[in-house]
Amino acid sequence: MTLPARAQEPGTTTTIHTEGAGAVRRTVLPGGLRVITESMPTVRSAAFGIWSAVGSRDEAPADAGASHYLEHVLFKGTGRRSALEISAAIDAVGGDLNAFTAKEYTCYYARVLDSDLPLAVDVVSDMVAESLNRPEDVEAERGVILEEIHMRDDDPGDLIHDEFATALYGDTPLGRPILGTEDSINALSRDRIHGYYRERYVPSGLVVSVAGNIDHDEVVRMVSRAFGGHLTGDAAPAAPRVGGAPVPLDPRTVVIDKDTEQAHIILGGAGTCRTDDRRFALGVLNAALGGGMSSRLFQEIREKRGLAYSVYSYTAQYADSGIFGVYAGCQPAKAEEVLSICRDELGKAADESLTDEELERGKGQLRGAMVLGLEDTGSRMSRIGKSELVYESLLPVDEVLARIEAVTLDDVRAIAREVLAGPQALTVIGPVGDREFAA
Amino acid sequence: MTLPARAQEPGTTTTIHTEGAGAVRRTVLPGGLRVITESMPTVRSAAFGIWSAVGSRDEAPADAGASHYLEHVLFKGTGRRSALEISAAIDAVGGDLNAFTAKEYTCYYARVLDSDLPLAVDVVSDMVAESLNRPEDVEAERGVILEEIHMRDDDPGDLIHDEFATALYGDTPLGRPILGTEDSINALSRDRIHGYYRERYVPSGLVVSVAGNIDHDEVVRMVSRAFGGHLTGDAAPAAPRVGGAPVPLDPRTVVIDKDTEQAHIILGGAGTCRTDDRRFALGVLNAALGGGMSSRLFQEIREKRGLAYSVYSYTAQYADSGIFGVYAGCQPAKAEEVLSICRDELGKAADESLTDEELERGKGQLRGAMVLGLEDTGSRMSRIGKSELVYESLLPVDEVLARIEAVTLDDVRAIAREVLAGPQALTVIGPVGDREFAA
Repeated sequence: MTLPARAQEPGTTTTIHTEGAGAVRRTVLPGGLRVITESMPTVRSAAFGIWSAVGSRDEAPADAGASHYLEHVLFKGTGRRSALEISAAIDAVGGDLNAFTAKEYTCYYARVLDSDLPLAVDVVSDMVAESLNRPEDVEAERGVILEEIHMRDDDPGDLIHDEFATALYGDTPLGRPILGTEDSINALSRDRIHGYYRERYVPSGLVVSVAGNIDHDEVVRMVSRAFGGHLTGDAAPAAPRVGGAPVPLDPRTVVIDKDTEQAHIILGGAGTCRTDDRRFALGVLNAALGGGMSSRLFQEIREKRGLAYSVYSYTAQYADSGIFGVYAGCQPAKAEEVLSICRDELGKAADESLTDEELERGKGQLRGAMVLGLEDTGSRMSRIGKSELVYESLLPVDEVLARIEAVTLDDVRAIAREVLAGPQALTVIGPVGDREFAA
Repeated sequence: MTLPARAQEPGTTTTIHTEGAGAVRRTVLPGGLRVITESMPTVRSAAFGIWSAVGSRDEAPADAGASHYLEHVLFKGTGRRSALEISAAIDAVGGDLNAFTAKEYTCYYARVLDSDLPLAVDVVSDMVAESLNRPEDVEAERGVILEEIHMRDDDPGDLIHDEFATALYGDTPLGRPILGTEDSINALSRDRIHGYYRERYVPSGLVVSVAGNIDHDEVVRMVSRAFGGHLTGDAAPAAPRVGGAPVPLDPRTVVIDKDTEQAHIILGGAGTCRTDDRRFALGVLNAALGGGMSSRLFQEIREKRGLAYSVYSYTAQYADSGIFGVYAGCQPAKAEEVLSICRDELGKAADESLTDEELERGKGQLRGAMVLGLEDTGSRMSRIGKSELVYESLLPVDEVLARIEAVTLDDVRAIAREVLAGPQALTVIGPVGDREFAA
């Protein structure tokens, strides 16, 4: 059973559904802060996360990289804790404290032993709600982020994903890199970063998600205490980032001549958006084409011909758009051959159908990955937190499994025709001089 | 309680100890094949691994890379299954099938839902016991491994670890890269690979380890069936790789001029070997120096000065040697400054002591990381499998925690003086021309 999450009033708690041994419960606090928990009574740990509905696609061009920059600065100190005191508190109990910024959200989290949950709630909530964003901290962190950009540039298997997004989406919010650019990072002022924080990090735009050996009511009490004076007013939780007009694509071919050992290649185009019902069929297609060692691309490019070590397909989903892409790293002299095999396999999958065996295997892969992932408190915390931000409602695991099971060969054929026959962008990084490649 | 594992006769089963809800049990099958399991009744999955006591340090120079090459070839097919049938079987149930080769061992593993354990036992055992190593498969895989080497070369943060091992150990089995070199891979023949397999992959040199929702006796039955005719004779399990004469070090400074954005640096020297009682004190020192965000190196280099994104210290342990090293990636122009801060911090830690707070925090980090890791079937499978291969006996978790707790400031000071004051090797990769660096 799935309750429409939006209907809930501040100050009330709902049991969304029960899954296995544990229950998923949700409370809306004053100010619109949502607390969503999943109890896992058989584990001894807890994962605590705070999700902000802000990501790099919310940035104006002049702010490019601000969401990620801010994520860094939030580790630098509050009125109660220095940067060292923040990290030392979690290190002392052997927990993991970290954060990541995506195009549509930002997450701060800690994974700790269950007895250390009160500490994690206090530290992470303090970081997110009470950050000082001092000018000297913003300055020191600027150097760190520039080095993060340089590190990304030094790893072509990483760089190519950012370059591909730009090749597909152009100079748009979805096409720009999450890290920003050297120029945009150098141009961002402390006031701009701080203003971004004050404006966007408000209780109604935040979701607290917790999974593990926890009690929902206790978590709500701890979070209420930690957020203190911020929890006032009757603001409703922000609506999820759903739908919107389709994002226009302008797929291009981008070839970057670089002195590397391998040619790194991504070929891809539009996939499905996050709420598209066809995402399960695309998941099966992705599994069959390049999702595992038994997939067509792995078999053709690596097993039979030994042309690549790393070859895979992948999907990315956003509110109103998505990506289906294929990556391969190979000898520069073999780039055309590898690309030609990729095109052949994409073409075959669009023209013909999967086999019954591939359909069943693809479903098994999605099912197994989902169920195996549920043993981890961090994965459960992410699932419920992200769902709260970006979906209208949380799909229970059983319903996800049923949707996977319901996918037919016709469903896969239909999405393959649309996705694989559409315009494709191509990115190649390697010592390829001025060789021409065509998507 | 810890039983000396070596005392056990083939055909018998011992309960090594019980931990939490589950028990660790061990059976020696005819031929000397060991089966060690840990039951975790609250999970729904199982991790199944087969460990071989063979790694890159067992290779003669002419065989460099053979252990890892063989690991790849074992996925290519048996009398009963093609490469596709091996991967498809595990993909169909959504499991993870993979392998890795280290300097002292090689592991093949699958993580699956508990109900799929019989399948995993059958497939992974078949791969390891019945590999055909056909000439055409060895040829196809040669290209894959060359691309794996090229991919490693394209990621300087990865490459530098291999270069550092060579700078520290020279052209010795521990100093040579696990992947081999282009030349050694090109020179390895099918007969050489197959001979290596026939000679080294014998039941007495293998350990089967399983963790999850499993029953020991059932696992033993499944493994006995899967290994079939190989399980004959009264060979005793191979002795663990313990001790030996200390490995002579010849620490050098290696500077590789390369067109990257960052300078990548590792400075380090001898750590402790795997069975050295001082390894727990070195673990605390490592945590305090560069093991987390609250560590001295992170604070000095990243938090205060913004000079690096990635900066950490690490340890590696082998039977008779070990590494303690520090990595940083920074602007090439700042390499000397970063190196100087690293040296200062290592010097201070060797001359002075940690604070009481750092000691307690370091212990907390080791304790938490250990306990949090125990929720994962894969981590548990690795712990018991690796212990069986490389230790005289399996230390129960409680005993590991007690050893961590027992570390004193004096212990840390003693190991710091020895490790940090010894001769250091230095590796720098980046656009540094012929600048000179000194370890």
